[in-house]
Amino acid sequence: MKKLQVQLKAFPDGEARPEHFDLVQTELPPLDEGEVLCANRYLSLDPYMRSQIAGRHTSGALALGDVMRGECVSEVIESRHVSVPVGTLVRCMGGWQTHSIQSAAAVQPIAKSLSKPSYALSVLGMPGLTAYAGLHILAQAKAGDVVLVPAATGAVGGTVGQLAKLAGCTVIGIAGSADKCRYARETLAYDACINRREGDLREQLDALAPNGVDIYFDLVGGEFLQIASERLAVGARVILCGLMAEYNSTTRAGGPPPGLWIKARAAVYGLVVYDFEQQRDEFISKYLPLVESGALTVQEDIALGLEQAPEAFGRLMRGENQGKALVKL
Amino acid sequence: MKKLQVQLKAFPDGEARPEHFDLVQTELPPLDEGEVLCANRYLSLDPYMRSQIAGRHTSGALALGDVMRGECVSEVIESRHVSVPVGTLVRCMGGWQTHSIQSAAAVQPIAKSLSKPSYALSVLGMPGLTAYAGLHILAQAKAGDVVLVPAATGAVGGTVGQLAKLAGCTVIGIAGSADKCRYARETLAYDACINRREGDLREQLDALAPNGVDIYFDLVGGEFLQIASERLAVGARVILCGLMAEYNSTTRAGGPPPGLWIKARAAVYGLVVYDFEQQRDEFISKYLPLVESGALTVQEDIALGLEQAPEAFGRLMRGENQGKALVKL
Repeated sequence: MKKLQVQLKAFPDGEARPEHFDLVQTELPPLDEGEVLCANRYLSLDPYMRSQIAGRHTSGALALGDVMRGECVSEVIESRHVSVPVGTLVRCMGGWQTHSIQSAAAVQPIAKSLSKPSYALSVLGMPGLTAYAGLHILAQAKAGDVVLVPAATGAVGGTVGQLAKLAGCTVIGIAGSADKCRYARETLAYDACINRREGDLREQLDALAPNGVDIYFDLVGGEFLQIASERLAVGARVILCGLMAEYNSTTRAGGPPPGLWIKARAAVYGLVVYDFEQQRDEFISKYLPLVESGALTVQEDIALGLEQAPEAFGRLMRGENQGKALVKL
Repeated sequence: MKKLQVQLKAFPDGEARPEHFDLVQTELPPLDEGEVLCANRYLSLDPYMRSQIAGRHTSGALALGDVMRGECVSEVIESRHVSVPVGTLVRCMGGWQTHSIQSAAAVQPIAKSLSKPSYALSVLGMPGLTAYAGLHILAQAKAGDVVLVPAATGAVGGTVGQLAKLAGCTVIGIAGSADKCRYARETLAYDACINRREGDLREQLDALAPNGVDIYFDLVGGEFLQIASERLAVGARVILCGLMAEYNSTTRAGGPPPGLWIKARAAVYGLVVYDFEQQRDEFISKYLPLVESGALTVQEDIALGLEQAPEAFGRLMRGENQGKALVKL
């Protein structure tokens, strides 16, 4: 049996483009005892993949010719382990390919209550869990907090904004176009959203948050982190969760002057979502009803077909996606 | 009645030297109802005073001709409030002067159990409370943690090191001379102390903390914060508490790249000791017995006479003091 996979063909200098990837057909070996064959149904595309390509991600580096890694929702179509029967829908690190062989212990069955399996990669998956862990477990958001979210309509940011609003916070977003800002306000219920390409960001923030920012959920690093750190209220929390501004760059910019955080008595937390696997069930059980009722808007930007993955990844890294970037296989 | 006071005479460009101050005699007005006249017995000299001179401290800026501010242990020698009788020893913001008039509500009587009143400014005063708040309230130090302390023999650092050791931590210091390092190891019980003027700091730290640093109690900012942040263990805590490296400078250096803190899942806390006034009594009651028994070494560097304050402040800012800088009046 054969599978199709997307391999890393060349290391990009800046932006990763389709010519840096190869679509290759390879042979699937037979299953060993304890393994399952997963047919990938949805593949998650995420900014961290750019840092895997650059060799800077905690999960380790990629070599040329390696299949691109990624989380999938997959259907078990052959099983040599009794605990995972054929037909089970699971989450697994299936990668950018049509099929993967996994140890039964390495796949997580998806809650049967999910009306759409893709939710396990989007609103109730890693982006949702990231938002929940940062906003509620680390930052302990409470009603009245002023929450600032860059990349306001992205997979994580859009969920942070919605969760914060549900918690009674005042939520201010930053996004890259007037359309995204309108979407943030009208569909995701942000109180305000600043178009970062128009006007002076500092002045607009000062007007919108005259008493400062209580929670800054950083997804981008760079200048935004600096600007937000200058405007923290006393007792602020900062979640460091992504460095979108420098994924394409080979240099690592420094952070804000620490005096800004002393002045605000800020608590600043580095967040890696893998640390919160134990809170996943609690998160899903709290928010699934809100997804099903429509109180939590699901944002998915779904490309069709594995061969579209490189182009969809490029759109994600250019910020052209609207919501969680997925590929349907 | 007259008093002597030290006024700010000129704004220093870099280091504050005696010629930037004036010793001036002024008249004491009579007391109003509710006020007390304090004769200052000990004056605390602290690095934050340099940032008050520069106009960057949370407490506000100083103008030329202003009396230098500072915490004192003082004796009430005249009182127009029944709650604070003559003879009471109090802490108050008495400033660099022989006498000050305070509202009775603005002075805090010193615990009678203190065998020496200067302890209320040193080991059981602001430096001690800073160490306690950072190490135990924010960083939640526990046995086995590897704790790194720059300015290891300073008023705060020396207490951090001792408190960490009492809590069962492995304590590594950084200090500016071989003498200070010996003192840190032999008198303050540091497990190790690195002379920052000898050898490569990074290499020595890697050898002493091969599994990384669990708690970095930053008092200096700058390069040390960068070097420590590169070596954090997963789950590390960083206390941002001082910027000794830049108090004399007009520019604000950026901090470490935030990716270092994400990688370590660090919790980074800005500490301002004034926020922990409510924990002062708890702190004193826990540590007073250890001071009295000698388990906690008291380090005081006492200059004699108000006219010595500018020179003693210069020594403090050059790191030439050994322990808490005080002036006995």
